[in-house]
Amino acid sequence: MHFISQKKSLLNAISIVQKAVSSKSTLPILKGIYIEAVSNHLKFIATDLEIGIEHIIESNILEEGTVVVDARLFSEIVRKLPDSEVEILLKEQQMIIKCQNSEFNILYYPSDEFPELPTIEQRATYEINNQVFKNMIRQTSFATSQDEMKPVFTGVLVEIIDNKLNMVALDGYRLALKKVELTEGYNNKAIIPAKTLNEIGRIMDDSDDTVYMTLSDKHALFTLGETKLISRLLEGEFINYKQIIPKEYKTRIKVSTSLLLDSVERAALISREGKNNPIKLNIVGDKLIITSNSEVGKVQEEIDIETEGEDLNIAFNSKYLLDVLKIIEDEFLFIDFMTSINPGLIRPEEDINYKYLILPVRVSE
Amino acid sequence: MHFISQKKSLLNAISIVQKAVSSKSTLPILKGIYIEAVSNHLKFIATDLEIGIEHIIESNILEEGTVVVDARLFSEIVRKLPDSEVEILLKEQQMIIKCQNSEFNILYYPSDEFPELPTIEQRATYEINNQVFKNMIRQTSFATSQDEMKPVFTGVLVEIIDNKLNMVALDGYRLALKKVELTEGYNNKAIIPAKTLNEIGRIMDDSDDTVYMTLSDKHALFTLGETKLISRLLEGEFINYKQIIPKEYKTRIKVSTSLLLDSVERAALISREGKNNPIKLNIVGDKLIITSNSEVGKVQEEIDIETEGEDLNIAFNSKYLLDVLKIIEDEFLFIDFMTSINPGLIRPEEDINYKYLILPVRVSE
Repeated sequence: MHFISQKKSLLNAISIVQKAVSSKSTLPILKGIYIEAVSNHLKFIATDLEIGIEHIIESNILEEGTVVVDARLFSEIVRKLPDSEVEILLKEQQMIIKCQNSEFNILYYPSDEFPELPTIEQRATYEINNQVFKNMIRQTSFATSQDEMKPVFTGVLVEIIDNKLNMVALDGYRLALKKVELTEGYNNKAIIPAKTLNEIGRIMDDSDDTVYMTLSDKHALFTLGETKLISRLLEGEFINYKQIIPKEYKTRIKVSTSLLLDSVERAALISREGKNNPIKLNIVGDKLIITSNSEVGKVQEEIDIETEGEDLNIAFNSKYLLDVLKIIEDEFLFIDFMTSINPGLIRPEEDINYKYLILPVRVSE
Repeated sequence: MHFISQKKSLLNAISIVQKAVSSKSTLPILKGIYIEAVSNHLKFIATDLEIGIEHIIESNILEEGTVVVDARLFSEIVRKLPDSEVEILLKEQQMIIKCQNSEFNILYYPSDEFPELPTIEQRATYEINNQVFKNMIRQTSFATSQDEMKPVFTGVLVEIIDNKLNMVALDGYRLALKKVELTEGYNNKAIIPAKTLNEIGRIMDDSDDTVYMTLSDKHALFTLGETKLISRLLEGEFINYKQIIPKEYKTRIKVSTSLLLDSVERAALISREGKNNPIKLNIVGDKLIITSNSEVGKVQEEIDIETEGEDLNIAFNSKYLLDVLKIIEDEFLFIDFMTSINPGLIRPEEDINYKYLILPVRVSE
């Protein structure tokens, strides 16, 4: 194996696949990056057996071959090299890295021990705009559970019905739902780990390109330009979420997203000292009074709102409110309530394709 | 106590004194900020009994008084308030903080338990330009020891002799020395904790103002505009550092600071896997060859230099080289050597007032 590449393009490839490198695997080879030099390109692969990432760059290949090299050491070396041509070859059981007046000789792993990425049959592939998909992930994945004891809750349900793509996340206390229209696609569903989606979100650049999502029985494959990401799916039955989204309300308020965010952030400074971080919302006519108290003191906030329906007292965990207020971009939002023990339903004023359900907390008066 | 201040000016005062708040004290009151409202100003004080910081702002005082309030909670509340006027008063054992439509009531500590800052007699005060002093700190304090078992080494010697201010830091492996001219000042010396100097460096803004340093037997006082910082001095005898700075050399090299920094950073990627992070410098005519090897591999770097005197092989701990290469701003620097077991002396090409001594490491061939 012998090739010449630009430092920048090498570093970019390493940075992309490195996100799949296992940080805590007991298999030493999973700490490595697999590199394959064939024809006029280099293929980089890393995997932690849950997620695999592959990236291809053009390169001047002088001799074909494969190698696995420690991801951390290799990425640090390439990062510190001058911004110039880098020549890499294997010789006497060492990888030689030359760039201007620098020469590294480092050990490598035998490449035949590196696990192959699963093959995905291209049965059902969906096309989505990069930015639309990135935004869907941002608006849902935060609502998944961190609790590995309920594996289904750590994933996002991806459901394609009648050319609509729904993404749903829930953790037992709140639920986030985002819909978009697809140009075409078979009906299908899968539960994708939130970690996978977050990695895709990080890899996607700010371009308006297209991401292709392929779902098989056990895996999802995402293709973005020269990058492929393959992830295992989560097994199990997702909750029938449609049942739990309320269809009616007795109280509806319209409130400024930023005023509500600021007030809840202040109230959370007091509530976080208590159990469940509860903050109370008191709707009195066209005023929303937010209060919280704990052993360190108390706080009261007042916001002008538009109210339709009855006055109401209800309490929420401030974290679950803050999470959604931070990702809503509309200037105003609606919250629908039934009673103080029914969930609240939050949606942005303009974006009718996003819904967030949040369970109330019971607090003593 | 009752006053009205702008949020920005309150937040600025809190941020300055908060650096002295004790993070791990067993005395709860040291987690607080002392606030005194007198005449037309507010005085803020925090201390961990090693360092005390005081800052004064103008304010509309409606009723004089004093209070101590939890630094973390108070700073977070003020930070989250709208950018507007803040009204603060004490009522029924609570501090009330009002700003637009927000109102906090929080508990406070009785102010009479807050320790007084020591009084420093203004016997010997020195005037130094902010930027000059900030740079002196940056060029020396990193060379102090972190080892609390040798307290004197955790401080920087500040020595005033014949209108020259010397700052010296050493840890047994390297020494950093910086001199500046003062306009006037009594001969004097003190060992100031590096932590104190680093805090002053952080508080100093980028203005060209003057800092006043006052030394008493036990304390140093620094005055910067409306901020005062008082610190305990370290007790003990500082090493007679002049003795150990070599006066002659057998080999002198002149090298590009950035090329040397880049090469040593790359070599350190390999050397950090070994003991003492050793990297070897091999001077052969007008070439400097830097090599390092450890169990992960080896590296060789070559730099063009100007050499005066004999060829030489010597090895250094890469960390001690990197530390100084990062703070030298001159394009070129000199290194003087005697033999491979004598210290190297580094100085910037232009700045004749800075010297850095570094002990070699013995390595097997």
